[in-house]
Amino acid sequence: MTTDKAETRNNLRVVLVATRNPLNIGASARAMANFGFGHLRVVNPYDVAFREARSAVGAAPLLAKTQEFPSVAAAVADCHLVVGTTNAGRRELQHPIRRLEYGARVISRDLVGGPVALLFGSEKYGLSNDDMSHCHWLMRIPTTSQDLSMNLGQAVALCLYEMARESKAAAARPTKIRSATAAENEQVTAMLLEVLAKSGYVNPRTAGSTEEKVRRLVRRLEIPGRDAPVLMGMLRQILWKLG
Amino acid sequence: MTTDKAETRNNLRVVLVATRNPLNIGASARAMANFGFGHLRVVNPYDVAFREARSAVGAAPLLAKTQEFPSVAAAVADCHLVVGTTNAGRRELQHPIRRLEYGARVISRDLVGGPVALLFGSEKYGLSNDDMSHCHWLMRIPTTSQDLSMNLGQAVALCLYEMARESKAAAARPTKIRSATAAENEQVTAMLLEVLAKSGYVNPRTAGSTEEKVRRLVRRLEIPGRDAPVLMGMLRQILWKLG
Repeated sequence: MTTDKAETRNNLRVVLVATRNPLNIGASARAMANFGFGHLRVVNPYDVAFREARSAVGAAPLLAKTQEFPSVAAAVADCHLVVGTTNAGRRELQHPIRRLEYGARVISRDLVGGPVALLFGSEKYGLSNDDMSHCHWLMRIPTTSQDLSMNLGQAVALCLYEMARESKAAAARPTKIRSATAAENEQVTAMLLEVLAKSGYVNPRTAGSTEEKVRRLVRRLEIPGRDAPVLMGMLRQILWKLG
Repeated sequence: MTTDKAETRNNLRVVLVATRNPLNIGASARAMANFGFGHLRVVNPYDVAFREARSAVGAAPLLAKTQEFPSVAAAVADCHLVVGTTNAGRRELQHPIRRLEYGARVISRDLVGGPVALLFGSEKYGLSNDDMSHCHWLMRIPTTSQDLSMNLGQAVALCLYEMARESKAAAARPTKIRSATAAENEQVTAMLLEVLAKSGYVNPRTAGSTEEKVRRLVRRLEIPGRDAPVLMGMLRQILWKLG
């Protein structure tokens, strides 16, 4: 299962078009390494020194095998699906647009069939109409702000995260921590009541209702199972000191 | 509907702890602007020139009102839920850990009830044990690579994206019982530590780690807001009796 997934991820080509800032190439490579994608391609990067991108902690092997292409056409030539990314604010009437959540699922499915290209445009202008003409459809990251584009490295990270995302995981509950048993809660309650009695917190006239209040309070704390003995150890020590 | 969402997002405090690179503060602010979150706090940033973060295109208004704090405790004092973020590779046995997909949903729901803090550690070391002792639980971004941490700005973007993604669900939920604020939890912690010191529970040689253990334990209890003053009253009485 894991192997299959790794293999299909291997079919994605992240294509950075006309990127100006080498830091963004580094950040993109790092996100790829984070989420298990291995093929980065660059088309006419503004600064050819992208291999030295400083923020690319741990992404050096990926950057070393990054391929450079003179045109989008050349960079996507071996791909059976080409998807462009676009900003929330732009209206692209020429292409079908899919939201990231849905588009990423479509791409993930398509990766099984062979190489797929995912294009990101330059920081300032995004993909040009000419770049987009190579795309089957566009994918839009659903930001709140209409007029503020996303940082390129962050946009790449979001797309890859969404593709790697397992929809099952969202529904999955975390392994729950075992709560203290009723017996443990009652032990804590009894010891706490003894401490409170010895320290003069409990008014003898209202002792009965205080006991109920303390019992309810201890239950509301939903003490984790492993913390019950710790709390009892504390209370035991306090009791001993109170004589 | 949209207003409700904007209002609950307004309850999130993104807290950057000991951030070294001002570019990452800028990138975090930009992601916040992208996804409609407005409150950024920084604790001991390495470079105080964070306001000039170059990559913060469009995030200037947000950076202008960013608050600086001397400690994590001060930065989260008004929050009733404090969540730390952690790298895939680290094993944190002291805290419950939730995957991003699920954790973001829990946070979104909790934002309805008041301020929530989401902590991000330094680029190099992440959150320290001391930082984490202020957290109720930790949230993990499910990267593939175990040993390569995420870029800070990208991690912030992913968390905010995931929270914005789930915010529909949050609006439907009824208001939860208010949990104790971080300041209240810290007061309970301080008083309990004093009681434990006076009763001889604390070994002076290991006082530092005991303090962290007690702080974590108090957070795990997720004390309801109305119970915090009751617990403090008990502790005050015990302290008085212990002299």
